[in-house]
This record gives sequence, C-alpha cells and structure tokens, in this order.
Amino acid sequence: VLSLLQKTDIALSCWGSLPFPTELSEAPGCLKYCCHLTGQLKEIVPAPFFKKGFLVSNWGDAPAHGIAEGCMTLLLAVLKDLHVRIQVMRKGGWEIDKKNYGGSLERLEVGVYGLGAIGRRFVDMLRPFGCTIRIFDPYVVKLPEGCLRAENLKELFSLSQAVVIHVGLTPETTHSVNAQLLALLPDHGVIINTARAKIIDQEALFAELKKGRLRAGLDVTDPEPLPENHPARQFENLLITAHTIGDPWPTDGKPLKKLYRYHEIALDNIKRFLNHETPQFLMDEERYQRST
Amino acid sequence: VLSLLQKTDIALSCWGSLPFPTELSEAPGCLKYCCHLTGQLKEIVPAPFFKKGFLVSNWGDAPAHGIAEGCMTLLLAVLKDLHVRIQVMRKGGWEIDKKNYGGSLERLEVGVYGLGAIGRRFVDMLRPFGCTIRIFDPYVVKLPEGCLRAENLKELFSLSQAVVIHVGLTPETTHSVNAQLLALLPDHGVIINTARAKIIDQEALFAELKKGRLRAGLDVTDPEPLPENHPARQFENLLITAHTIGDPWPTDGKPLKKLYRYHEIALDNIKRFLNHETPQFLMDEERYQRST
Repeated sequence: VLSLLQKTDIALSCWGSLPFPTELSEAPGCLKYCCHLTGQLKEIVPAPFFKKGFLVSNWGDAPAHGIAEGCMTLLLAVLKDLHVRIQVMRKGGWEIDKKNYGGSLERLEVGVYGLGAIGRRFVDMLRPFGCTIRIFDPYVVKLPEGCLRAENLKELFSLSQAVVIHVGLTPETTHSVNAQLLALLPDHGVIINTARAKIIDQEALFAELKKGRLRAGLDVTDPEPLPENHPARQFENLLITAHTIGDPWPTDGKPLKKLYRYHEIALDNIKRFLNHETPQFLMDEERYQRST
Repeated sequence: VLSLLQKTDIALSCWGSLPFPTELSEAPGCLKYCCHLTGQLKEIVPAPFFKKGFLVSNWGDAPAHGIAEGCMTLLLAVLKDLHVRIQVMRKGGWEIDKKNYGGSLERLEVGVYGLGAIGRRFVDMLRPFGCTIRIFDPYVVKLPEGCLRAENLKELFSLSQAVVIHVGLTPETTHSVNAQLLALLPDHGVIINTARAKIIDQEALFAELKKGRLRAGLDVTDPEPLPENHPARQFENLLITAHTIGDPWPTDGKPLKKLYRYHEIALDNIKRFLNHETPQFLMDEERYQRST
C-alpha cells in the first residue's frame, strides 16, 4: 500500500478503504491530495497528514439532503402513525382511533434544534407544509425567512408540538434533551432524531413512549443495533430506521445508472486539483479533531 | 327540521347533518344561504336547491393541503420502505437489504398524474426535495415553474421512477392506470394513490405487488374497507391508510384548540354573506352534478 500510494498524485478513498500508512506522511513520494469520497476520515487518514499539510477533502454537505429528507419522512410518518396503521391493517382492522392518532403539519408548531447544513435543508423542505417553524440555535445570527427564534431549549419544547433534532453531538448537547424538556411537550407530541443518539436521554424518552404519551422517530439509537429483545422495538409509537434513512434507490447489486452528489463532488474536486484550483470541502486539523 | 330551517337565514351543515327537506326549496321561509362546512353535498342538499338559486357553499380547497401532505407522506414512506423496516425491527433484525429497498427523492424522476388544486399543492411540497417533476394533465396550459410535461400517460410512466395520482375520477380516468402502464415502471418503481381507487386497475397493481416488482402507497382501495382476510393487507411493499391520511392532530375527544382551515372558510363566508358580499366556493348546478 505504501509503495503504491507513493507513486500516486491523488489517492481516492471511501468507506472500507485500507487506512493510509502513517509512514506515508513522512515519505509521501508523489502523493499530494487525498480525495475521500465519503464522510468519516479518522479511520482512513491518520492525524499526521494534517500536520504535514496534505490536501484532504471529503463529501462536505453531500449527505445533508438525505438526512433532512429522512427527518421529513419520519416526521410525517410518526405524525400520521404509520406504524399503528400498518399493525391495524395486518390484523384485519381499518381506521385508526382518531381521538389518539393522526396529525398534519398544517398549522402545527414545529421546533428545530440546531441549524447547520442539515437543519437548513430541512427548513427548506418543511416550509411549504404551512407549519410554524421555531428554531433554537444560539450560534446562528440570522434565521431563515419566516422562522421564529426560541431563546432556549425550554422555550423550544414548551411551544412545540413536534421537535426535530439537527444539532451536532458535543459535550454541550449530550443528553441535552432530557426528561424535563420531554415533559414540556404536549400529549401526542412528536420527537424526531436523525442526528446522534446521545443528544437525547434515551431512557427518559423510552419511559415517555412506554406510557404512550409521546410519539417518536429515531434513525439513531444507543446502542446500534438495539438488543434483539429490547422492548422499544415493539412500541407502536416509535419508528426506528437503523441509521439508514438516507439510503438511496436500491441497486440490485447492478452498477449505478446515475452519479450521486458525493461522486460529483469528488470528480469536481479532482478537476479542480488538476487545474491548480483549491478543492472544495477541505479538512483542516481543527475540524478533523472535532469531527466524529 | 322544515319549520326550524324556515326560520333561519343561514343554515350550517356538515358531515352527518340531516338532509335538507326537499319541500324547503319550494317554501324556504327566511332561508337564503346553505353554508356547508365540509365537501360532499349530495346527501345533504338536494338538487332542487340549485335550480331555485339558493346560495350553497362548501369547504372549497380546504382539504387539498391534507391530501397533498398525505401523498408526500406515502411517497417518502414507500420510497424508504418503512413497512419493511417496521417488520424487521419488530422481529429483532436491524438494517434492511440495501440491494432491494430504500430510495431518496433527490434526483428521482417523479411523475404527477393530474394537476388540480391538490396536484398543485403537492408540487409545491415536492419541489424542495430536488427531484425531476414531470406532469401529465392535458387540461393545464401552463405548468408550474421547473416542471416538465408528459404528453400522455405512456410517456409519464416510461420516464418516471415514482408516479403519484391527483386526477379526479371520471369515465376518462377510470382504470386509466392499467397493467400496460404499470409494466413501464422500473423495478422498485413506486405508485401512490390518494385520489380515488378506481383510477387504478387494482387487480393489475396487486398482481405487480404480489410479484414484489413495484412498491405502492394507497389511501384509497376498492372496496373500503378491504375484506379482513384480503392478501394485500400482508404485502410488505404496500402501505394502506384507510382514506384517513389527511386526518388532523388527535383531539382526545376534547374541544379543538385551533380552528381548521375549513372552519375559517365557513366563518369568512358567513361574514361575507352578512356584509352582502359573495361567499367563496359557491356550488353551481353543473359542478354539483359532476361532483362525487
């Protein structure tokens, strides 16, 4: 691997690539640019590469769409109790109990916790559905058009019927959605997490779900997978999607007919590099250290 | 009922109201305006009222939002195989088979059959998801911005990975989605119907679903409910939502905290009538005869 990479100008890597040998950062040969097609770099590109000033890029904002869309899917599916509907239908029933199930985004009070690249995509998708959009993100100065600001999480949860999580996992956000906040949501209140599991105090959420008071959609759980016999797997007011809600159209194992956005980002970056322009979505040491 | 209504200037009616007595159209007393809060009029307001020139209004475009939103819900849920995911999760599994399941609206080819009030709402909701939107509606001269036109249904089904139905049920559209058209959709192709069941040749669709070739979401079936032991209830590639996908937030049997749009339309219409202005969404005899 070392001698092959030393003969290479640009190294392409992806999920499941072998790690770059650490020696390469001291004896790079021709290697100038590591173009990583996907997101997480830590297992593939060791830290010394950043100290040595190699160009390293990843897929940047490419996955934002899929996660925002996954969040919209779970929000709509949970609000309309598809899980319950499917069970009723399979058992020979028909309508679900309107007193306890159902919902529409029209005029709903929706809270958004965190407004990074994914949160912004999500807000763009949500806007045509005619709900009130209230955002908590103390690091954002200017909110998107038509959105309201929540000054703190307590305000966000007090005023929302549904809350979606798009914040990153940091010491500050870990278990920030706790029992006290969840208790502020109204009965049938909805919580959606397509970010990181540890942002929510999962035990507190599961306790509310077990009581039947709230409804939830989780693309992320702690641990992943949940144990085979975990009781939350049977909750009818919980939809779990195994950290794969952003997955694309099935391939049947055949070659792709279309490029995905992250392929195009990599191709564009290689073109930029060859034209002596700066690739997009370059990682620096500080972001590398902060990243998952 | 007759003598009460004769003492009334404005009669309010709704789902489940007693029918207006036919004699009232000959001897109306004070009655001038029938303000029907919801949609279907035929069982409540008899045809002679239209001949006699009473004002009769209904909820107009109020339900368009709920149906368009329901269609978005089913499209996303079917594309991401939530039905399969729920079964896998309950049985102790985790991820679904990526070769056969999954999908994103990003760059998907979506076909829209019918562009009335509901179809237009749907297109507004779909646009931020970054798909190609292709519309078949020979009665629409100018398409919404950024949408492509299909000249006929064959073209719509040939070029789409997912097709949604927003056309009305007429002799022309009855069973217009038939086996030949369904065969044009690719493997894993998606079809969503939140309009009327008889627009699709249901036997042809169920045959495709049984083979596992397509995926579908149906808010409408023929008959409703489906028989308790109907095999389609167990199809993992079919989501059925019992003609209630547009239902609002659960009430727990308590009074509503907010008015719905159809309440506001009725209130606005009564205000208009009292101010000698024309109410919105008036029915005329021709539309009454054509309506469901």
